[in-house]
Formats: sequence, structure tokens, C-alpha cells
Amino acid sequence: MTTYEQVLAKLPAEIVVLDQDIIGGYTTDFRKKYTGKSPALLRPRSTEEVAEIVKLCNEHSVALVPVGGNTGYCGGTTPDDSDEQLLISLQRMKKIREVDGDNLSITVDAGCILSEIHDAAAQEKLMFPLSLGSQQSCQIGGNISTNAGGVSAIRYGITRDLVLGLEAVLPDGQILSNLSPLRKDNRGYALHQLLIGAEGSLGIVTAASLRLFLPASSRVSAFLAINDISDLIPLLAKAQQYTGEAITSFEYISNTSLELLLAKKPELRRPIAEPAKHFVLIEAATSSPILPLDQAIEAFFEDGMSEEMIVDGAIASSEQQRLDFWNLREHIPEGEVLNGGSVKHDVSVRTSDTARFIELGTALVDRFGRGARLSIYGHVGDGNVHFNVLAPAGVNASMFLEEISTEVSPRIYDLVAKMDGSFSAEYGLGQDKLSLDQTYGDPIKRNLMRKFKNVLDPREIMNPGKVVSSRNVMSDEKEVQCL
Amino acid sequence: MTTYEQVLAKLPAEIVVLDQDIIGGYTTDFRKKYTGKSPALLRPRSTEEVAEIVKLCNEHSVALVPVGGNTGYCGGTTPDDSDEQLLISLQRMKKIREVDGDNLSITVDAGCILSEIHDAAAQEKLMFPLSLGSQQSCQIGGNISTNAGGVSAIRYGITRDLVLGLEAVLPDGQILSNLSPLRKDNRGYALHQLLIGAEGSLGIVTAASLRLFLPASSRVSAFLAINDISDLIPLLAKAQQYTGEAITSFEYISNTSLELLLAKKPELRRPIAEPAKHFVLIEAATSSPILPLDQAIEAFFEDGMSEEMIVDGAIASSEQQRLDFWNLREHIPEGEVLNGGSVKHDVSVRTSDTARFIELGTALVDRFGRGARLSIYGHVGDGNVHFNVLAPAGVNASMFLEEISTEVSPRIYDLVAKMDGSFSAEYGLGQDKLSLDQTYGDPIKRNLMRKFKNVLDPREIMNPGKVVSSRNVMSDEKEVQCL
Repeated sequence: MTTYEQVLAKLPAEIVVLDQDIIGGYTTDFRKKYTGKSPALLRPRSTEEVAEIVKLCNEHSVALVPVGGNTGYCGGTTPDDSDEQLLISLQRMKKIREVDGDNLSITVDAGCILSEIHDAAAQEKLMFPLSLGSQQSCQIGGNISTNAGGVSAIRYGITRDLVLGLEAVLPDGQILSNLSPLRKDNRGYALHQLLIGAEGSLGIVTAASLRLFLPASSRVSAFLAINDISDLIPLLAKAQQYTGEAITSFEYISNTSLELLLAKKPELRRPIAEPAKHFVLIEAATSSPILPLDQAIEAFFEDGMSEEMIVDGAIASSEQQRLDFWNLREHIPEGEVLNGGSVKHDVSVRTSDTARFIELGTALVDRFGRGARLSIYGHVGDGNVHFNVLAPAGVNASMFLEEISTEVSPRIYDLVAKMDGSFSAEYGLGQDKLSLDQTYGDPIKRNLMRKFKNVLDPREIMNPGKVVSSRNVMSDEKEVQCL
Repeated sequence: MTTYEQVLAKLPAEIVVLDQDIIGGYTTDFRKKYTGKSPALLRPRSTEEVAEIVKLCNEHSVALVPVGGNTGYCGGTTPDDSDEQLLISLQRMKKIREVDGDNLSITVDAGCILSEIHDAAAQEKLMFPLSLGSQQSCQIGGNISTNAGGVSAIRYGITRDLVLGLEAVLPDGQILSNLSPLRKDNRGYALHQLLIGAEGSLGIVTAASLRLFLPASSRVSAFLAINDISDLIPLLAKAQQYTGEAITSFEYISNTSLELLLAKKPELRRPIAEPAKHFVLIEAATSSPILPLDQAIEAFFEDGMSEEMIVDGAIASSEQQRLDFWNLREHIPEGEVLNGGSVKHDVSVRTSDTARFIELGTALVDRFGRGARLSIYGHVGDGNVHFNVLAPAGVNASMFLEEISTEVSPRIYDLVAKMDGSFSAEYGLGQDKLSLDQTYGDPIKRNLMRKFKNVLDPREIMNPGKVVSSRNVMSDEKEVQCL
């Protein structure tokens, strides 16, 4: 028996899936960039079963890859091709453990689908604000493990800001449990912060307590046309001022992103007839039955028009029109796929640098020439730009994009580094960005990460090869392992 | 030469203070509960000098105690009585390195006084929201190292939520630098989260990038009288709803806290003539010139009155009246001192449990009897209750309070534990609460903290004896040290 077979033999048969048709749903990543193999998918039904699995894997030094909804962009949940790594999914652990309305908190199993949490909160007339394109299939455990961002982070924060407490199984099988949904707690180190965004490499998140908010009683959405990109952030500041910081989304959409999409999906409605270089989908919301948010947005709009920052715009006059705006925004990634796919750069800079980054990045791609097309969009209110490069129409996209990856991407990342930005704003590192981390990351930080990994997971069983570079590239391994 | 003398001999003389009059300002804690000794206070002028000091201390295994404004409540910066621990103060490092208005961020040296950061933000017509009673003397490095809370956390979060980036000197003298003020960044583990709230035990924070917000263009404050404590949190929910979650403070003040204060400081103005059991100081703010926050608060007030949740109240009609309200709130700790001092319990529970906690806690103190008086107040919007017990008038306070500590405090902490709350909501552990952590803390968490401490600070030089229990109480020390 191989070591992983010894582990499988000790587990209840009901939680072991050997059917390769099911396993195959996890061995290729969402973007089809990585493919691996796995002999089994484990589907525990409780935290205790997760702990049992992890303990056995630790004893036998068998690698475990935690999978969620398989919606990640960096191959963070794809096993390697050894066919020896076991997959573990928490898809059977999807209890809403508790909603505490007066405490504005919800406690959930990590296998809950994000949209199920939205629904559970809505049932209690409350709202969980994390909002992602993949919310119908991603799991909250994955959102926490990747510290997901999304379209409402500008108001409600990223996942880290929404987590009040965690339960997790550590790599030795111990259960770290701190689910109490407290808003202030200063009893020593904030250990659970380390698990948020650790992509399953320091343990498996099994449950979480999350913050809830009051739902909107009114919501105003507008689609704005802008010609001068440097007006972007001053416009955001103006909107925040008029609305009392009630902006829930401030999504930039370049004209090319919009045109690429509309060319392939003409049934989607163009919100503004007039052509423009840049668009912003802005949304504000309030729980107040008293405060006239629509008047605040109208005053903002008039001010922006009179200062010629906004060249045209439409304020949604119905829920349908609002959904039409969002439909455009949410189909942009699909628009890229329909145009042959893209090389994605999920970067962040200071919000004050977004306009300059977009300008300089565009110049870089123009200099490469050869008809490369750009789809630029993102959560610019958080300084988060999706800067994606496409092949020209009629060209072999995969070959062209390969060249973009080797010729253009390094220059874009150089630019990001020069601006003190991040080469991974919301996608994490997974396996896809480890080499970027080697080039641009801070060696002191990397060294520390390795030390923490060694302390928590000395046998390297938790999602090996992801997030932290593997042990053999460390120069001071010896020292690290035995301090 | 002793080892610390060897360290001092290698440092520039200008940064070494041997004057015991100056050193004496740090060897007794703010509450005069702990006194230690130290041969020298080091006052580096730059991050590099901090690194040099730490490196030397590490080489010679000399303990370093980072001190800030000496405003902490848990003896976290008081040296032991060995007279061998060196103090290090960043009081000379107080540059505002940068204010980036468009990015809503400020980057500051860790020695900046909190109020200096308020001023620097205000100069750029922006606002840094961390607000504490000690803001004229506490340093931001200390605020970060204790993850300070304060009176506006309900809207803007605790210190952790306000930190975008950190620079810190690690216990081996390496500089971990991640000051870029990005709102989204998912490049591996969130190491700087571990330094926030670590009370100087994992390194010395030397600088930080912090979030700024728009200043209020209007602000409404009200002092409300409530007779049924169980109305407290529903009232907060109502206020949040009417104002669109614009509440910046929701401070509970028990009638006894108010009366103790007014008895000693009759010059302070009583905001409501009518007697009541409970009071709330509520404040809302908005940057909007359009949204009528005063109308929202008035509607809230009328609604609360008509439902008989609010029995009486005053909405501040002038800035002076607003300051009068806050004057009361901020003098409550002084009111306790003037009445012989108190045994403090800085606890947190779910906001939904605050009323029940106050009721059950009061019953515990009543059961002890003997005229013990209670001063209960705090940031109940965050579930954070300051539950303080005083001696009756005319009794030897120090003896009585000693008894409270041994007879009553354990029961209060038992109650907190039973409610899954925290025995340290915002004060941290320091040296004062290590024994509470031994009783009520999670051994798995404590064990992990010790592992992290060993990895980062194997020679135990950084603020030893604080936050993490000392090495010799660990049962699995051997295993921890060499995994």
C-alpha cells in the first residue's frame, strides 16, 4: 500500500470518493492553465472528520489539497501531477450555524456557497456584503483562504475585514476555534489573521463568524462617461463627499472592455450612446428611510458635469436599468474569453496612482504594438486594476498571448513594482504567481513566511507548492527548521 | 562589563539616556500597579538605529522593552526589576512621512503622538478617526502594538482596520518594510497583522501607513436616557438604520458612573435633569453637504421616544453642548479615581449580550454586597463594556479593592467566559492579564503564540514576560524549539 492508501484505508468509506469523473472536476483549474492528478477526493461531514483526515495525513506525510468552488485564478487548489495528493472538499459542511441579528453576525460552515450566506442574511432582513462574480459557486472557506475582494470592498472592506472569528484545523490536526463573533478582542496575537489569505497552506478553515450589515432601503446607481482618466479619483472623492461615504461600488470600465463585450454580445444594452474613453459604474446605498441619497447623487452628478469631469451619464431609473449596468460589468471577463482570452494582470496601486498606472501601462502595450488590445477594468476605488491584454482579431490568440506573457507582462509588473504596487491584488499567489513572488517579492517576508510554514506544517502536507516557495529554494533552511 | 553595558558601549552616546529622572518616567506604569528598574533609555533617531539597537541586543541576549506614551493599562511597557532590561522609546521618530490625499492615506513614524496625526490629517482637510482618551500623549506605535479601540471604532474600526502597511524591526534586527498604502494586496501571508496587537513582543513597529477619511461637514450628538437596559442594542440598530450607518460613537454610561463623577466635579453639566438608570452618548457624522443628518437623528429620536425606549434626551444644539457631553464621558475614569479608584474589567461580549452581561454582572456585585459601587460604561456598539467596581464611600479603598480583585473579579471573568466573551477587549495582555490568559485562554492558541514567539525571537529579547507566558511554563518547550 502506498502511504495515501494507508490514509484512505483508515477513513470511513462514505467520505472517500474514488470516482475519477468527480475528481476530474478539481484536477484542472478554472482558467484551464493547470492540470494535475489525484487518487481521491475526501468529503468530510464535520470539523472532527476534517481533523481526523488532517491528523492521518500528517502522520503519514501525505499531501492534502483543500478545494472550494474551483473558481480561483491562480491554480491554488489544483493538485500536482504525482497522483499522490489527496483532495479535500468541505462541500458537505454547509450549515448556517447561527444568525445573530442584534450582534450583526452570522456563523457558517466553510463549505457554504457565498450566495447561500447572502440568502441566510436576507432572511433575517440583514446583508452580507461580500460580492463576487463567482458567488453562485465559490465557497466561503475559499473566500477566506484567498481574502477575496469583490465589488463592494470600497464600503464594506475585503474578506479580512468581514471575519470576526474562525475555526480551523491546523496541519497537525488540532482544532483552533475562535468563533465568538466579538468586535473587540485583544487576547494576544491575532493568529486567525494569518489563516486569512493563506490559501490552505497553514490549515483548513472549517467555519467562520462574519459581520452583517443593514440592507439598503434605497440604492442609486449611475453609469458615467469620462474622457480624462486623471478625473477618476477626484470624482470618487466628490461622490464620497456628497453621499457621506455611502459609495458601495466604484467600478472602472475602459471603453475597449465595453466594446469587446458589446461586439460579441450585442443584446446587452449600451447605457450611454455617446462614445467616451472611460466609464465608471458607481453605486451608493443607504439603510435610511430619511436621507435622500438620490438627491446626493444628483448633486454629485451636476457638480461633476459642471466641472466637466463627467461628460455624460445615466442614473438608473429602475431596478432593471441598474441590473443592466451590472450585467455589462459582470460580463466583461466573458467578453475577453469570447475575443480569444487574455493575459490577466490583477494589480493594485495607490488609488492616487491608478490613472497614471493605466496611462503608463497602456503606453507599454502600445509600444509592443502588433495590434494587442487592452481590456482594463476593476475596483479602482480600492486601487485594484484588472489590466488584461488580448490578441488582435483574426490572430492565433494562444501563440500571441504566450508572447504577451513573456514580452509584455514583465514590463507591466516592473511598472507595478516601481509604483510600489502589488502584482496580486485579489487573486492570491496559488502556484501561478510564485515565480512573480521570487522576482518582485520581499525576501525578508518570504523567509518569514517559510519559517511560519515550517512551524505549523513541518511535514509540508498542507497544499504544498502553493503560496510559499518549496523548502529547497530556501538558503537558510537548516537554521529555520531548528531554531 | 555586564552584557547590557556591552550593548550601550557600542551605541552612539547621543541616543543613550542614563538619567534616572528621565528613566523613572517609564519604570512605573500608568496605573501605578507595576514598578521596575532599567539602567538606560535608548532614543534612536531612525529605523536604522532601531535596527542597530535590536541587533546588538539580540547578539548579547539583552532584553529590550519598547515604551510609548506610557498610557497602557496592563503594564505592557514596564520593565521587570532586574535592572538589566533596556528601554527603547521612538519619541524622536515623529516625522509625518507623507499625506496622500487622493489615496486617503498617511504614513507616519511610530513615535508620532496620536493627536499629531489628527492634526496632520486635518491640515489636508482629511481625518484620522482613531480617538482615545490618551490621544495627547499616546504614540501611534503603541496604538498599533496594542490594537487600540476607542470611541469611534463602531464606524471606522479598531486600529487593525486602519493600518494599510507597516515597517518594523524584527527581533533579529531585520527590517520588515511594507509601507505601501494599498487597499488590496494578496501576496502571501499577512505578516504585519501579527505585529498589530503583539505589544512589542515580536518586533518594534517603526512606521505605519494609515487610512484617512473625509471630515464631517455635519455632526449630530445626543445624550439619551434609557430605563430598560435591554433597549440598548435595539436602539443602536434603529439609530444605524435612520442614519444610514453613520453612527460614529455609541457610548454607554451608567447612572452610577455619572453620579460618581458629578459628586466630585459638580462644575460639569448634567445634560438631562430627569433621573434615569442608563445613558447613551450617541454621535453621527457625515461629509455630505446634502444629506440632512439632523433630520435623521430627530426621526430616530421621535421613534425611540414613541416606542418608550428613550425616556428623555437632549440633542446638542451647539458645539459647546456637544463638548459638554463628551466632557462627561471622558472624565468618567477620573471620576473613579476621585472616588478611591476601581478594579477595572475591560471585557467584551457580543453586542447582543451586553444588556444581559450588565445585568448578570451587576447581580454578582450585589451578591458580594458590602456597599461595593459599580461604574459601568463603554463602547457598547462594539460589545465593549468597562465594568469597574469601587469601594463604598468612607471605606479604605485599597483594602476593599484588593478583596474585590480576589472575590469578585474571578466571578466576573467566569461570566464573561461563559458568554464566550473576551477578558481583554482593548487593553491587551501586557503583564497584568497573563494569569487571566492562563485561566481562561485557549491552550492551543497559547501554544501557537509561543511557537511564533520562539521562531521570531528565539533569544527572548523583545519585551520578555509580556503577552506570551514565559518559556518555562510551556510543557512542550522542547518540541516547540526544534520542530
